[in-house]
Amino acid sequence: MARRNSVSKRLADLGEDALVKLLTRGLPQTPRTLTGPGDDCAVLRGPDKNRLTLFKTDCLVEGVHFTPGADPARVGWKALCRVISDIAAMGGEPHEALITLALPRTAPVARVQAVYAGIKKAARRFHCGIAGGETSSVPDDAPLMISVAMLGSVEKKFRTLRSTARPGDLLYVTGKLGGSLAGKHLDFTPRLREARWLAEHAGPSAMMDLSDGLAKDLPRLAAASGCSFLLYPDKIPLTPGCTLSGALTDGEDYELLFAVPPRRSSTMPAKWTAAFPVLPLTCIGELRPRSQKSTPLTGGWDHFA
Amino acid sequence: MARRNSVSKRLADLGEDALVKLLTRGLPQTPRTLTGPGDDCAVLRGPDKNRLTLFKTDCLVEGVHFTPGADPARVGWKALCRVISDIAAMGGEPHEALITLALPRTAPVARVQAVYAGIKKAARRFHCGIAGGETSSVPDDAPLMISVAMLGSVEKKFRTLRSTARPGDLLYVTGKLGGSLAGKHLDFTPRLREARWLAEHAGPSAMMDLSDGLAKDLPRLAAASGCSFLLYPDKIPLTPGCTLSGALTDGEDYELLFAVPPRRSSTMPAKWTAAFPVLPLTCIGELRPRSQKSTPLTGGWDHFA
Repeated sequence: MARRNSVSKRLADLGEDALVKLLTRGLPQTPRTLTGPGDDCAVLRGPDKNRLTLFKTDCLVEGVHFTPGADPARVGWKALCRVISDIAAMGGEPHEALITLALPRTAPVARVQAVYAGIKKAARRFHCGIAGGETSSVPDDAPLMISVAMLGSVEKKFRTLRSTARPGDLLYVTGKLGGSLAGKHLDFTPRLREARWLAEHAGPSAMMDLSDGLAKDLPRLAAASGCSFLLYPDKIPLTPGCTLSGALTDGEDYELLFAVPPRRSSTMPAKWTAAFPVLPLTCIGELRPRSQKSTPLTGGWDHFA
Repeated sequence: MARRNSVSKRLADLGEDALVKLLTRGLPQTPRTLTGPGDDCAVLRGPDKNRLTLFKTDCLVEGVHFTPGADPARVGWKALCRVISDIAAMGGEPHEALITLALPRTAPVARVQAVYAGIKKAARRFHCGIAGGETSSVPDDAPLMISVAMLGSVEKKFRTLRSTARPGDLLYVTGKLGGSLAGKHLDFTPRLREARWLAEHAGPSAMMDLSDGLAKDLPRLAAASGCSFLLYPDKIPLTPGCTLSGALTDGEDYELLFAVPPRRSSTMPAKWTAAFPVLPLTCIGELRPRSQKSTPLTGGWDHFA
């Protein structure tokens, strides 16, 4: 196929990361903004010098993030837990959310109430408030959409970005990867408690949550930190019944990926096991200087590829 | 038509205000939340005792809030200016926004860039930052959707809610009403400067922005304040070429509706004209005790009626 010129180019010709790069170029920023586009959350300076504000939005679209037949209460749970997972990945705590529901006038009231029941359940479980939101109609044949905006905060000393790891740091993941579509993607537990523990006890040099698959997300963390990476494929913890390829590219794991300087990593796994005896923690690789080649990885979730 | 039972009820059987009432019942709230669902923005307490945080989301859906052929840069402008209008209605200032774009993989890159150009233009004009956001795909035939989450703040003494007016307070609107679809709905100027001036100089007892039409929004302000209202229909400032019915029900005026205690309202119009010689300010009615009957009004924008 002939290459499209820039006028007729479609998003599918560009891919998600290139689109985001294009759109975020030259965005106006306020002086309060310490971390803008490119991390799990935006980080804002507030009046309290020791505590930073976290700000995040995330949306779910019917037919993309869940099927039309999915249990609406689990969809509501997922909508809120996805942003909580992003707040967790910064080392922070969630506070208030605003919920945007866009749905056709023909939608059953009971379905919408069930979505909200799932949202409320997650809010109570993770101690967030629902401070408001909005309902909008969409044309009759359009998909249901839920967008959640969340405020959180993190002590300045515990803030964990993607961009601050160094070559030589070891890479860890929590839990097991792959096979999320079998159900976990609607029922996962955001690693809020684990991330807080890590921020307080392990001093990760970088952290993010795995939403698009390790094959997509690990290169992002490494690039943000100006590193390349070496992955140990035989060390990747696989969900039972799942292949290595699935673990790399299925996405929606909502586990934590983080880096730890080698000097701190020797005692960390034992302390982790004492704190979280059930949830595995696995060293899956290491960061290297940018001049070295990364383990080649392809696949993972791309909205526009 | 037989009344549907609760199991098969659709949103169209319920209407927007009843849906919102149903969904916001029993929502968990954090102790920081001073004003939850029901006002133009959520109001949150922060570490600064004299300044409150404002938090708001608003979405635009293709086919509902704009036509597929609308100029994408004006759509972007509108998306950001709608939330700025809500921040203004609280007496506040906008700070950082997050942008959610949900659109099909077949969308032209140039269209998305133009939407962002309009967003950036509005952000520069009103001194906000764009701290991040998200792009998501939607199924190929689904509408483009833009959701904006905005943080703002307001000095505690200038915070202006919907719920704090009293019987006897006079009702004012800025600008002229009706006929927004002729173009204003894509090009309006949020009344940020005017609302700040009012908060500082006129001490409004309640304020909101007019997004769904006076016929819908005035009863909301009155109900929030526990009042009824008397409207002076012959005083309503009409957009040239627009009927009274259009001024009441077209919606998307993005003008301010506010109440002022009679003791403060005598000198206010003259001070307003000195500050804003071009933009009209009109007294259109008064609030009355709840026991009295309100001027009957029907129509206005309802997403689900």
